[in-house]
Amino acid sequence: MDHINGSLGRKLNMALVGGGQGSFIGRVHNVAAILDNRAQLVAGALSSNPERAKASAPFYDIDPSRAYSSYTELVDTEAGLPDGERVDFVTVATPNHTHFEIAKAAVEKGFNVVCDKPMTFDLDQAEELVKLVEKSGVVFALTHNYTGYPLVRQAREMILAGELGEIQAIRSNYIQGWLRTRLEAEDQKQASWRSDPAKSGAAGGFGDIGTHAYNLARYMTGLLPEEVSCHLKSFEEGRVLDDYGHAVIRMENGGLGTVTASQISHGRENDLFIEIDGTKGALSWRQEDPNQMMVRRNGEPWQIYTRNPNAPFIGELAAASCRLPGGHPEAFFEAFANVYRFAYDNMIKRAAGESFETKDTIYPNVYDGVEGMYFIQQCVQSSKENGAWLPLKHPLARR
Amino acid sequence: MDHINGSLGRKLNMALVGGGQGSFIGRVHNVAAILDNRAQLVAGALSSNPERAKASAPFYDIDPSRAYSSYTELVDTEAGLPDGERVDFVTVATPNHTHFEIAKAAVEKGFNVVCDKPMTFDLDQAEELVKLVEKSGVVFALTHNYTGYPLVRQAREMILAGELGEIQAIRSNYIQGWLRTRLEAEDQKQASWRSDPAKSGAAGGFGDIGTHAYNLARYMTGLLPEEVSCHLKSFEEGRVLDDYGHAVIRMENGGLGTVTASQISHGRENDLFIEIDGTKGALSWRQEDPNQMMVRRNGEPWQIYTRNPNAPFIGELAAASCRLPGGHPEAFFEAFANVYRFAYDNMIKRAAGESFETKDTIYPNVYDGVEGMYFIQQCVQSSKENGAWLPLKHPLARR
Amino acid sequence: MDHINGSLGRKLNMALVGGGQGSFIGRVHNVAAILDNRAQLVAGALSSNPERAKASAPFYDIDPSRAYSSYTELVDTEAGLPDGERVDFVTVATPNHTHFEIAKAAVEKGFNVVCDKPMTFDLDQAEELVKLVEKSGVVFALTHNYTGYPLVRQAREMILAGELGEIQAIRSNYIQGWLRTRLEAEDQKQASWRSDPAKSGAAGGFGDIGTHAYNLARYMTGLLPEEVSCHLKSFEEGRVLDDYGHAVIRMENGGLGTVTASQISHGRENDLFIEIDGTKGALSWRQEDPNQMMVRRNGEPWQIYTRNPNAPFIGELAAASCRLPGGHPEAFFEAFANVYRFAYDNMIKRAAGESFETKDTIYPNVYDGVEGMYFIQQCVQSSKENGAWLPLKHPLARR
Amino acid sequence: MDHINGSLGRKLNMALVGGGQGSFIGRVHNVAAILDNRAQLVAGALSSNPERAKASAPFYDIDPSRAYSSYTELVDTEAGLPDGERVDFVTVATPNHTHFEIAKAAVEKGFNVVCDKPMTFDLDQAEELVKLVEKSGVVFALTHNYTGYPLVRQAREMILAGELGEIQAIRSNYIQGWLRTRLEAEDQKQASWRSDPAKSGAAGGFGDIGTHAYNLARYMTGLLPEEVSCHLKSFEEGRVLDDYGHAVIRMENGGLGTVTASQISHGRENDLFIEIDGTKGALSWRQEDPNQMMVRRNGEPWQIYTRNPNAPFIGELAAASCRLPGGHPEAFFEAFANVYRFAYDNMIKRAAGESFETKDTIYPNVYDGVEGMYFIQQCVQSSKENGAWLPLKHPLARR
Repeated sequence: MDHINGSLGRKLNMALVGGGQGSFIGRVHNVAAILDNRAQLVAGALSSNPERAKASAPFYDIDPSRAYSSYTELVDTEAGLPDGERVDFVTVATPNHTHFEIAKAAVEKGFNVVCDKPMTFDLDQAEELVKLVEKSGVVFALTHNYTGYPLVRQAREMILAGELGEIQAIRSNYIQGWLRTRLEAEDQKQASWRSDPAKSGAAGGFGDIGTHAYNLARYMTGLLPEEVSCHLKSFEEGRVLDDYGHAVIRMENGGLGTVTASQISHGRENDLFIEIDGTKGALSWRQEDPNQMMVRRNGEPWQIYTRNPNAPFIGELAAASCRLPGGHPEAFFEAFANVYRFAYDNMIKRAAGESFETKDTIYPNVYDGVEGMYFIQQCVQSSKENGAWLPLKHPLARR
Repeated sequence: MDHINGSLGRKLNMALVGGGQGSFIGRVHNVAAILDNRAQLVAGALSSNPERAKASAPFYDIDPSRAYSSYTELVDTEAGLPDGERVDFVTVATPNHTHFEIAKAAVEKGFNVVCDKPMTFDLDQAEELVKLVEKSGVVFALTHNYTGYPLVRQAREMILAGELGEIQAIRSNYIQGWLRTRLEAEDQKQASWRSDPAKSGAAGGFGDIGTHAYNLARYMTGLLPEEVSCHLKSFEEGRVLDDYGHAVIRMENGGLGTVTASQISHGRENDLFIEIDGTKGALSWRQEDPNQMMVRRNGEPWQIYTRNPNAPFIGELAAASCRLPGGHPEAFFEAFANVYRFAYDNMIKRAAGESFETKDTIYPNVYDGVEGMYFIQQCVQSSKENGAWLPLKHPLARR
Repeated sequence: MDHINGSLGRKLNMALVGGGQGSFIGRVHNVAAILDNRAQLVAGALSSNPERAKASAPFYDIDPSRAYSSYTELVDTEAGLPDGERVDFVTVATPNHTHFEIAKAAVEKGFNVVCDKPMTFDLDQAEELVKLVEKSGVVFALTHNYTGYPLVRQAREMILAGELGEIQAIRSNYIQGWLRTRLEAEDQKQASWRSDPAKSGAAGGFGDIGTHAYNLARYMTGLLPEEVSCHLKSFEEGRVLDDYGHAVIRMENGGLGTVTASQISHGRENDLFIEIDGTKGALSWRQEDPNQMMVRRNGEPWQIYTRNPNAPFIGELAAASCRLPGGHPEAFFEAFANVYRFAYDNMIKRAAGESFETKDTIYPNVYDGVEGMYFIQQCVQSSKENGAWLPLKHPLARR
Repeated sequence: MDHINGSLGRKLNMALVGGGQGSFIGRVHNVAAILDNRAQLVAGALSSNPERAKASAPFYDIDPSRAYSSYTELVDTEAGLPDGERVDFVTVATPNHTHFEIAKAAVEKGFNVVCDKPMTFDLDQAEELVKLVEKSGVVFALTHNYTGYPLVRQAREMILAGELGEIQAIRSNYIQGWLRTRLEAEDQKQASWRSDPAKSGAAGGFGDIGTHAYNLARYMTGLLPEEVSCHLKSFEEGRVLDDYGHAVIRMENGGLGTVTASQISHGRENDLFIEIDGTKGALSWRQEDPNQMMVRRNGEPWQIYTRNPNAPFIGELAAASCRLPGGHPEAFFEAFANVYRFAYDNMIKRAAGESFETKDTIYPNVYDGVEGMYFIQQCVQSSKENGAWLPLKHPLARR
């Protein structure tokens, strides 16, 4: 369990962009960011509507003086505040099409950034953002929050250590049902912007949740992709963007991966599920039951790893990602908070002038964001070309 | 529960081809065929090795006089026996490459046939077999045994009745791990012929279990395919045929299906698992836990249908496919026996000179066999052509 | 997989008493007894109603000449038939109150017996039956059929071998819901006699299923009981016998056990579930999911043992109790058949004049029947005495 | 989702007693209390050791000036501070034997109290505390935290509304394995005081977790107990208090309940599991899988209620107890926070001079604490008297 940040001697100051009334994800960022008592939310530009931005401030307990009308006002004003008072990082929790401009503004002013995924509207923006981040040297975390689950990290550690041997097959699925009906036509806030190409980007469900499934596979295995063949569908009549999609991925090492994303599967809530086959063992994990992971090896009883930080079979990173003993379930908020937790470590190093890892980080970062945008772009394009194989390995991808 | 066959006034006489010592599936056929006391195993050509054929007879309690040295001897001799003594049907439980010649011989002599899948070595044989069966008018059942599970039939009934609305997505998976190591190199009987293209056919795992997964999807939904894109892999070094494969299928109605088959997933035993998404509901079923089926609809609690023949929510066909009350689990043998059970009904009709359904049967039939062989052929070809889309709707497919 | 019985050189001949039309368990005995092709059903006294007894014969494919009007006629006539033609064993599948007289008649004529549980109407009869069996030297098997599941036997082997250490706590539960309404008032056949003290015996649900739960605990652990405190309830208005009960058991070694039996739990089908805690490990098993068993040890991932006869972690007895490879689920019939299978081995030994184990048998026997009747008697009495502690260790109990 | 407290116009001020370095539960209280941004931790007496109390303050971000050396100093000093600055409530997170004195001190000074369970060391203290709370009029919440799970509240609402009919049977189990070895002998902090009768109270495991299981049954059903028969065991050699126990409870309405608590079951982490049988339906819920609840009714498919605040089948209270949409799992912290959340509502009412419910509260309260202590006392006494039936309905019990 962490506490107020040692070397800084104070909490980190957070600004939130987006998250105004009716937002789901803004509040999640807030809870996650302060769960370990290492940060405090002190400023915000909570809505693109200036009045709503102001009105939402009390909800987050943000002082009216720091409830800004726009993200530009926020970064400009905060940049002028003294160190320690000034925000240390800006969380971007807005619809996809605005991520880039906000992140850019923050990065250019030297603020660390925590950004929702997909990172930008398109690949160009993503690649541009890498340059900006590299130039400014800020900490940039991308909330592929499912990487924060302790057992996901356990899987990553086990696989990178070779416990499953060579990875040959990956099946990553993200199955939801909430867009089975055209909620967007009913003006449901979450559904509306996600179904609008001008706000969501080139992909719908595949951008929203397919990227999570892809990122999870990449994060857990470290395997690089070679090329992708993709098929996107819009099953719900009148919907412009995809609500169902499937990608086949050839991995650099000869392995085969599949990513399936659905938003139209009745009754399915948030069923991110992955199975990984290696030459020495296999594992599977399900987000809705995150405190258990199945590990199988021929000739042995199946093994269920429980999220138990004190168990000898749980690795260091996974244990450090837990807040509660085994059997006291942890869940979505804690996983989300784990993205923050490890980004904070680097923010503190940066503040102290120390060097820190920027590419092979525990938390998803700007490079993962590029990969995600490339994944979306190539999937959409492949689907347009009848499932043609398109390259998927981006030069900026982390290995 | 059935009993000795009413209109015949006697049990049906069964002959078994294949199933000699060391066989797994021969014994399964035997148990399944007699489970309801409606048939008796009276003759056999139990091995392609004449001596072994004879030696295996006591194991099945077959009288030495009807333990034939070859299937040709069997059909020739039996054809000359009087009605009632003569075998009524021939079960073909041999390696794939011999199915056709044996089935052909039996059909031409007017014997009903129960045949293992994949039905033949290639599509030509399959199409030829259809002609022979149509000409002879025999009953032909194909042991896609998983269609015999009561809840699979429950799913079929519900879907065909429109309870799930239009079916738009299907994910059918068959995951095993037993060929993770090259058992074929150790001369393991099951593994050897399955890994030999001269015996197994053009596909390995995709022919062996991928066809089951495909057939299950077809059987449950009745949806016709349009075209397929497939990717086969041989992960185990030195293996000639595929041990992992994945097919994407465009359905005639615009739906999207996927079929995944693995034989190299550590610890997975026989994990046939299907998920089906319709506009009004979704369901999922797993062969290793066959007495439960999940049905989901947005806005309602998830529903678990149990295999309970007395429950009001269980349909007529599924109830008629049960032998035990709810909670008294049924499993593999009973499902297998259900293929026989409903084929027997038609054999009796035929013996009585009555007409009977030949295409849209409860049990898989020769047309399903054609579909299976077409599936294998097009998948193998598509995989060779880098996943090119190839037609998959065969003119003989049952609708 | 077994076959026709080696030393005998023929199948065993079976007679069935009870099992007339409408019977559930008679058919189960029939299927189970012949599943391995080692026995054939040749004679029966299928109902206490002579006409119905005759009329039920075709259902079982019994020749009219051996479809007897009564069990007395059956044992008298069969006793006069020559060896090899004469029945080898009599299966008793009648309501509880008639078990004793039928078993007695069969035993006294030297027939082996397979008898439903609870073994007799009361303890006196049970103790008397032991004497008769010991005197006659017949094989006597009691169909506590759940002991036939391979993983139950795996558990027994592991526990007796000390793999879980000293057993200290047992929680055995058998939860059903079918008597939630007073089916007996609607003349439902199964419900009627089970709810009638003149036919069922002193206990209702506790005799019917509580004894299974108790027997399972005894079978798996071998632990002897010391004393019992019991509480029986009749929740359904107007019901004479118990439909819910709970017993606390002090084990001889200081351990504590509980047995819970319910017939009034909505939606529960046949949920026999046991958890066993030892000093070195713990396990749990559920009848409705019989192909998996959970084994847990502190500091290790949970282990799921699958019913896989080829797996190195599956013991000899459990493997010998399987008929199918892992992942091809086995269920109720096969477990039931396993009681027969191992009784057959002894019947053959007896026929060959060889000695055989009579007390510590793999299958439940006449001594287990005594224990069951003692359990019922003491539970009913304890419940009448407000849960008073009463002795439970019977001198005839197997250790 | 809540926010800064409307009528107060500010966050509530929290003081924490206990929770010093090495504490698990102190941190849980902290996270839970501030999760909704409605409170802030401003003062503490974090250890009974004054130095450690001071040293622990930075961990909680408590200003040194309000890091008190003792709880007496805390309540005395804080009582003198002006309203709004003064703490609004005191959380008691110390070993059991000190709860009473601390709660008493806080209550007498007019502070609201949130107290760990078991509430006091013995029943006398608990009854005394009721008087003090009633006299002072403070809000008193007891952290039987499992009542905070949304689906537990869903169950309560459904049962109290009669959806399951009359409740007749309850099986509540709390199974752990962490005290399988004598951790107390190794000076493990959690184990040491829990195993010491002078600190834990009359019961060990039954006081620690048996009371949770009992409280859960009471909370979910509202059924009053009549009398109890209990059996406690200390399986681990040398342990003074119970590590395994079982209680049979006769309910006032004629129903039968059982409570089982184990700390010696290998591999079990925190497995609180309850099954409830009513005349119209049954339900079950498991703490380690808290986002699902099974509801069963004869003749209907089993139903799985998911924790989905937007689903029509989820009641108002349960929905108000959620922070995330369905499929985004919530867990231990959120349930714990729900105890605080609803206590805060009353604290605000009290601060505003409004009347508020004190007995039939959504959160467990001082009367539940009395019930818990009575349960412990009677169970321990019954066990000493060989399981004698002792009264269990306390006059102060909430109905």
